[in-house]
Amino acid sequence: MAEKPVPDASRRSEASRRAIHDAALALVAEVGYPRTTVEGIAARAGVGKQTIYRWWSSKADVLLEAFLDLGERAAREAGQRPDALPDTGDLAADLKLVLRATVDELHDPRFEAPARALAAEGLVNPRLGAEFVAGLLEPQLGLYARRLRSAQEAGAVRPDVDPRIALELFLSPLAQRWLQRTGPITYAYTDTLVDYALHGLAPR
Amino acid sequence: MAEKPVPDASRRSEASRRAIHDAALALVAEVGYPRTTVEGIAARAGVGKQTIYRWWSSKADVLLEAFLDLGERAAREAGQRPDALPDTGDLAADLKLVLRATVDELHDPRFEAPARALAAEGLVNPRLGAEFVAGLLEPQLGLYARRLRSAQEAGAVRPDVDPRIALELFLSPLAQRWLQRTGPITYAYTDTLVDYALHGLAPR
Repeated sequence: MAEKPVPDASRRSEASRRAIHDAALALVAEVGYPRTTVEGIAARAGVGKQTIYRWWSSKADVLLEAFLDLGERAAREAGQRPDALPDTGDLAADLKLVLRATVDELHDPRFEAPARALAAEGLVNPRLGAEFVAGLLEPQLGLYARRLRSAQEAGAVRPDVDPRIALELFLSPLAQRWLQRTGPITYAYTDTLVDYALHGLAPR
Repeated sequence: MAEKPVPDASRRSEASRRAIHDAALALVAEVGYPRTTVEGIAARAGVGKQTIYRWWSSKADVLLEAFLDLGERAAREAGQRPDALPDTGDLAADLKLVLRATVDELHDPRFEAPARALAAEGLVNPRLGAEFVAGLLEPQLGLYARRLRSAQEAGAVRPDVDPRIALELFLSPLAQRWLQRTGPITYAYTDTLVDYALHGLAPR
């Protein structure tokens, strides 16, 4: 028998990968992280356990990649580049645009259940928490830090501001409202966060 | 037999209450919220289960009160009134003082383990999450909102600012760093958050 040509194999393997991602996200949402297993993911995706271990070393690795992939798909659906924030020169407008897309994502049930299950597990499981912060959260925060540095070069942010702390003024409130359900998450809310963070609470 | 005078009974009941609080906080830190039971709390506190049910209707109620009591004790140890923030007229100084005391509390192991276990459970257990937000977090946030309104009356915060959103600019970053371990928690960090929140990131 002739071997299949590479593009077909690559497409097939892409389809398996996607099926495994979807199975992992669905399972962690349904039964939680502790009860999600590589065996369960394999069964739900209709692949052998060895297929998973060929590509990943643990369920945490599968979930991390599944989550990154989901985030990239969501960014593309929202018309955003997944690897950079918009930079039109208007910092407030760019941040508001991206945060509004994040509001949509946080209300998307595909994202909501697995993200919440993983965040909860990350609080009590420091190794998983560290993997998700390093693999998922920090790269996202890095995009905001880069956008703020570009604004510093353009004179729209004070030169003495530390971008890694500054970004928390508008991102952490949104994260906490979502995680702990401490208030509604709306476009008006994220717009207000951007305005307060840029212009401060004190009179000018 | 003569009945014991009321003050003694009241002292004894205060001691039982404290023992039950301590047992509940220790258990949830050691085995997590789901495996903490009213029976386990009673056994550890050396009281009967009925003593607990005389005062509380569920383990969530015990924990909520235990946590409130811990927070009030910590505030008193830090020389603060538990029911109001300092108001010297210098908003930045007052906020920095209170946030530095919060940094100390977040580094206190008596607080750390039960707070983390409860926060994690609150993410996946909406009823518990809502009880802790309403019973513990919102009353705390209310103190900051009141301090910000006083600053508005004194002209130190813009009149159009919503205090309930404004307080998130410096409190949520601290909460997220602590919950998700996304960065170090120091006095320099919380001082910086207050400065950025009050004066904004944009040049003045």
